[in-house]
Amino acid sequence: MYNIIYSSNGVCASEGFFADGVSAGLKKENAKDMAFIYSDVPCEVASVFTTNKMAAAPIRYFRSLGDVKSNFIVINSKNANAMTGQAGIEDIKEVLSHCPQEVQNPIMSSTGVIGVRLPKAKIIDGMKLFDLTKRDSASASRAIMTTDTFAKEIAFKVSLGDGSSFNIGAIAKGAGMINPAMATMLCFITTDAKVMRAEMQEVLDEVVKTTFNAISVDGDTSTNDTVFVLANGKSGAYEREAFKEALFKVMHFLALEMVRDGEGATKLVTYKVTGARDDKEAEIAAKALSDSLLVKTALFGEDPNWGRIASTIGASGIEAYEEKLKISFDNLCVYDRGEILFDAEMEKKCAVVMQHQKFTISCDIGVGDGSFKAYGCDLGHEYVKINADYRT
Amino acid sequence: MYNIIYSSNGVCASEGFFADGVSAGLKKENAKDMAFIYSDVPCEVASVFTTNKMAAAPIRYFRSLGDVKSNFIVINSKNANAMTGQAGIEDIKEVLSHCPQEVQNPIMSSTGVIGVRLPKAKIIDGMKLFDLTKRDSASASRAIMTTDTFAKEIAFKVSLGDGSSFNIGAIAKGAGMINPAMATMLCFITTDAKVMRAEMQEVLDEVVKTTFNAISVDGDTSTNDTVFVLANGKSGAYEREAFKEALFKVMHFLALEMVRDGEGATKLVTYKVTGARDDKEAEIAAKALSDSLLVKTALFGEDPNWGRIASTIGASGIEAYEEKLKISFDNLCVYDRGEILFDAEMEKKCAVVMQHQKFTISCDIGVGDGSFKAYGCDLGHEYVKINADYRT
Repeated sequence: MYNIIYSSNGVCASEGFFADGVSAGLKKENAKDMAFIYSDVPCEVASVFTTNKMAAAPIRYFRSLGDVKSNFIVINSKNANAMTGQAGIEDIKEVLSHCPQEVQNPIMSSTGVIGVRLPKAKIIDGMKLFDLTKRDSASASRAIMTTDTFAKEIAFKVSLGDGSSFNIGAIAKGAGMINPAMATMLCFITTDAKVMRAEMQEVLDEVVKTTFNAISVDGDTSTNDTVFVLANGKSGAYEREAFKEALFKVMHFLALEMVRDGEGATKLVTYKVTGARDDKEAEIAAKALSDSLLVKTALFGEDPNWGRIASTIGASGIEAYEEKLKISFDNLCVYDRGEILFDAEMEKKCAVVMQHQKFTISCDIGVGDGSFKAYGCDLGHEYVKINADYRT
Repeated sequence: MYNIIYSSNGVCASEGFFADGVSAGLKKENAKDMAFIYSDVPCEVASVFTTNKMAAAPIRYFRSLGDVKSNFIVINSKNANAMTGQAGIEDIKEVLSHCPQEVQNPIMSSTGVIGVRLPKAKIIDGMKLFDLTKRDSASASRAIMTTDTFAKEIAFKVSLGDGSSFNIGAIAKGAGMINPAMATMLCFITTDAKVMRAEMQEVLDEVVKTTFNAISVDGDTSTNDTVFVLANGKSGAYEREAFKEALFKVMHFLALEMVRDGEGATKLVTYKVTGARDDKEAEIAAKALSDSLLVKTALFGEDPNWGRIASTIGASGIEAYEEKLKISFDNLCVYDRGEILFDAEMEKKCAVVMQHQKFTISCDIGVGDGSFKAYGCDLGHEYVKINADYRT
């Protein structure tokens, strides 16, 4: 028995956590571009990183620390510190040597342009502006934005059956199409739950599959993608199932926020695949749909082109048959196991569905019990504009 | 010893072959929309089809014929006859029952919208306009166009050491980005070489790997993708290596023509990957580059964003290391095994390379001898425009 309710103040919702964003002159016009997250007691740390072979220096540096407790994360935008080799690691060490005294095993996290050395002097100067008594999660969430058009933050309070309770909250950035491959996603989660590292890591690994990995293609991630969970135990409360559900709510919300903020996106589409041979095949098909350029551009054009959906399923490599497939836009079935239900009238009805900001495309493969939900957005002119001019 | 020289008249370059395009009222304004290819003697037939599980009716119908000789192909545009089930097969049988008497085991091939029954009456009427004495390959190549902006045709004459010679020629359509997944590609090749079916199929299977499959992702093909080779043996001449090289020249040329005609494309880019663990890993990396939305949009923006190239290689899943990778734009090396050579001056030089219509991005992985070349184009506003409005 537990109860999960919305709360406020993101990463500062949890007891003993502090955060703020500052301007170090990395972005133009004094916009906030650096943030910290601090806990006044040491934290257990769980993490998930990119599977990209070119993992950025901050990730390689963190991995070199081993399973230490930490109470401080320094985050900068505008520079990814990726493809910078050993020099990139040394830069981090130098930057982190300027951390406040209260800090134990500090962590760094970066997002921005690849292949440029960290502007150390500016970053070290920026760290001097950190005020560890600040609890401004919103400011931190703005500082880590790159192409994001809005800041992303969430928090929940979890009440357990025995009257105890804990908090969990997070900030995140990411706006690269539906696919973290396409731009770095960073997510920082804090909790005052009393959870041990190994169990927290186990739960995180499970939850990431149906949240951040449901908006990406397996293994196809940027150089810097990162999720950190810091648990300082201050509430004294914990219950595995409650923690898992709360973590899911945090990550699911932020994953959908990233899709909604997809570069140039105007629609958030759920691809619900059922009846696949197994869950893995359902996942392959759902992600193939959310990744298809032809499907994405049809969404942008509000064109119920179900043939492209059938073709994408067929091309995804999963077991599928023309005579067993079923395709629906919300609850409008356009193709039912060999029968084409799509006519002029149905086309009009589907076009109305597609004018919504949110809708579901369902595909029943008709061969088994496997299911998966992926989330995607459309691809329009803004995406091209943003990405053709990103560096300039 | 053999000699291969350019020739003219596409599929009609080979002795005994006839072709033409007619207007059956499928396209607007009496544009040509149906074509035939006819040989006055029976032909050996080799073929490669889509691996899409939703393979269209014309492909399923051809497969049902077994290894027969044929001398006639009917082609229509505007309708793919895909997702039409058994009814789609019956439609083909009915259409083909109206072929001219000279015809033996006719074949049908279709491209266009998925999920709409074939307009049989119009197509049968269109066939009445076929004149089997016509040798107008150009007209046939125009009739099979969909979003293509130019017709695609090529022919060669092959002279062997013993003084004999044969011809090979082709027409093709396809303009879907760099990836036949994105729109149907059809290619019809005729030859008067005296080659047996089994050997011709073997050679075709080899050549397709480095040509049409170098502009696509494995297994990720449309419902209708098709290559047919018809050999009528009329020249009496044949030599395996000469035939293979001529077939390569035909298919390589047409594959690049499809990329060049990519929807909204302004550039043709060669992705040359060397030093991979093996050829397969080189192919995976080269195709990941040619498929990357971020790389494509950077090309369109003429932005030498080499970080996106490094990140795409890292995300492709192949064995790769930051300290072994080398990246060049034409002969300008921007990143050399850990050393960043990209500065303001280099950026200007690379931007000049990217203003060209054709250039090469080379990546040496530095771990082995595997190599592969893939071909891609940029993604710009026109692509979005074309694909958002395709059906209307």
